Amino acid sequence: MVKTVFLGIDLGGTNTKVALVDEEGMVLERSIIPTRAVRKAEEVVQDIASEAAKLCKRFEERGFKVQAAGIGIPGLIDWEEGVCLLLPNFPNKWKDVPIRKWLEEELSLPVAVINDVRAITLAEKRFGAGKEVQSLVMVAIGTGIGGGVVLNGDLYIGKDGAAGEFGHLTVEPNGLRCGCGSWGCLEAYSSGPAMVAQALRALVHQSDTLIRDMVENDFSRVSPKIIAEAAQKGDTIAVEIIERAGYYIGQALSCICVVVNPEMIVIGGGVAQAGELLFKSIEQGLRERLFIIPVDTIRLVPAQLGMDAGAIGTATWAKERLEKGVIG
Amino acid sequence: MVKTVFLGIDLGGTNTKVALVDEEGMVLERSIIPTRAVRKAEEVVQDIASEAAKLCKRFEERGFKVQAAGIGIPGLIDWEEGVCLLLPNFPNKWKDVPIRKWLEEELSLPVAVINDVRAITLAEKRFGAGKEVQSLVMVAIGTGIGGGVVLNGDLYIGKDGAAGEFGHLTVEPNGLRCGCGSWGCLEAYSSGPAMVAQALRALVHQSDTLIRDMVENDFSRVSPKIIAEAAQKGDTIAVEIIERAGYYIGQALSCICVVVNPEMIVIGGGVAQAGELLFKSIEQGLRERLFIIPVDTIRLVPAQLGMDAGAIGTATWAKERLEKGVIG
Repeated sequence: MVKTVFLGIDLGGTNTKVALVDEEGMVLERSIIPTRAVRKAEEVVQDIASEAAKLCKRFEERGFKVQAAGIGIPGLIDWEEGVCLLLPNFPNKWKDVPIRKWLEEELSLPVAVINDVRAITLAEKRFGAGKEVQSLVMVAIGTGIGGGVVLNGDLYIGKDGAAGEFGHLTVEPNGLRCGCGSWGCLEAYSSGPAMVAQALRALVHQSDTLIRDMVENDFSRVSPKIIAEAAQKGDTIAVEIIERAGYYIGQALSCICVVVNPEMIVIGGGVAQAGELLFKSIEQGLRERLFIIPVDTIRLVPAQLGMDAGAIGTATWAKERLEKGVIG
Repeated sequence: MVKTVFLGIDLGGTNTKVALVDEEGMVLERSIIPTRAVRKAEEVVQDIASEAAKLCKRFEERGFKVQAAGIGIPGLIDWEEGVCLLLPNFPNKWKDVPIRKWLEEELSLPVAVINDVRAITLAEKRFGAGKEVQSLVMVAIGTGIGGGVVLNGDLYIGKDGAAGEFGHLTVEPNGLRCGCGSWGCLEAYSSGPAMVAQALRALVHQSDTLIRDMVENDFSRVSPKIIAEAAQKGDTIAVEIIERAGYYIGQALSCICVVVNPEMIVIGGGVAQAGELLFKSIEQGLRERLFIIPVDTIRLVPAQLGMDAGAIGTATWAKERLEKGVIG
């Protein structure tokens, strides 16, 4: 019997993952290639397509049938057309790149395009932390802050696919300028770079912190991971940075809860690995802000799928779009 | 042929409206009775039921068939059980009042319970401003601030029916205390009482404002309507109060937009009648906060259904719950 698989592509600023994923969300094989995003978009896409084609060929020779491909984009996309509108973290920004068209031509497969964090949210719903609930929101804390919304058992992306842009919830109306153009967005307070900026501020103010020794006075080495390690050693500055970031996330979550009142909140992303202290601060922020809904009835949990979530989510998105007749 | 109708009950702190509504959202007849909320819940419900029964009897004699009843509650409810948990504006709070059970016994009809503002949102979706869109949020600005969420063409109420409690979006993290227990909720800044409180503050500070003469120095007569009239006459204090309230609503809307990315925002409620200035300020707040979604593509519109929206919405909710087999 022919076994059906889907191709999941997780486009990143540094590396891109190409994986074959079965209908149960299992990664059968993965390949990681450097994105080398300084190149033209055409070249990057061609590299990805050729790696994907190799993978598909190997599996088809073994009796698998690759049905469709999904690609997760770290930026703004036109969902209907499958066009990248803006990849803010890519050197040449990928303005108006028709990625679906290019990939469909190269791969001879139906291709579905999705935002990368929305893909992770879908993966967590289908195969991870959210398997058993009908509604959840996921917040992924990394270089940026993004997320996704699952309602009635399905990913809900909204009119422009922007449902889940939680990094741009206002948490301090007169606060720090955000890259988006507004002030006081969550991303300006609780993302990885926001935490690093606070640590650097402490260093230039000559504050007493372990972080200075840990990076051997090389400020460029300060990272969320270093801050988390310093906090674990009891460093007051580091503890404060994480508590503050977590509290703002909790405040933002209280806003999300009065809009969609979900059963579950999933916390993921690299910075979430700061661990218990961040989680406790998130929960504290939520408890101090949310009274209209009993906080104890909301399940606040860590993401489960780890590094493969993006590839699993994009492959699953391709599967679901194909089943709905949106692609193919 | 028997014509199908639904009973819509809009329970208010002062008056309660009982109406028969057809499947196209037309009010065929309405009756308004004083709620006299100082009485026991049993007595209030009995009065409503007896008025409703009279209405139903008259219509059934004329060949109509009343299929189900919906009641809109200005407070917290248990959706599954149809129990009022808390009506904060009622003198005896209606804690744990099994209103569905009581009404079903009195009326011998299936009864669906809904929050009052969620009902209005549903009415605007089916028969009002939102007829032609699949997704919208409604914000109703009155004594409190509430709202509702429509996604994929249906009212989305969330796990506890709290999707739409927009009055409790944090807009000033270190701001005014809110009745809910948190600080800086939208309701503490932009509701009718919040606007009145700001006018009173101006009066006690001896500010130069037309409001003083308009209420003939009787501070208890200050109302959102008076403030709106003063603003229309160019009173600076009144203009500032409305602009500030509107701006915060716009900021809150920007948060709602990144969570559910709706096609349309409907503004309703008594305070919304402050008119053009409030609308302009709401739009300004939204534009200064929301960059990740093009604001021009979001339709910001006033509610259309007016005073009957509650009765239409509760009747329609009853109809839809009956069709889904949730009641009856």
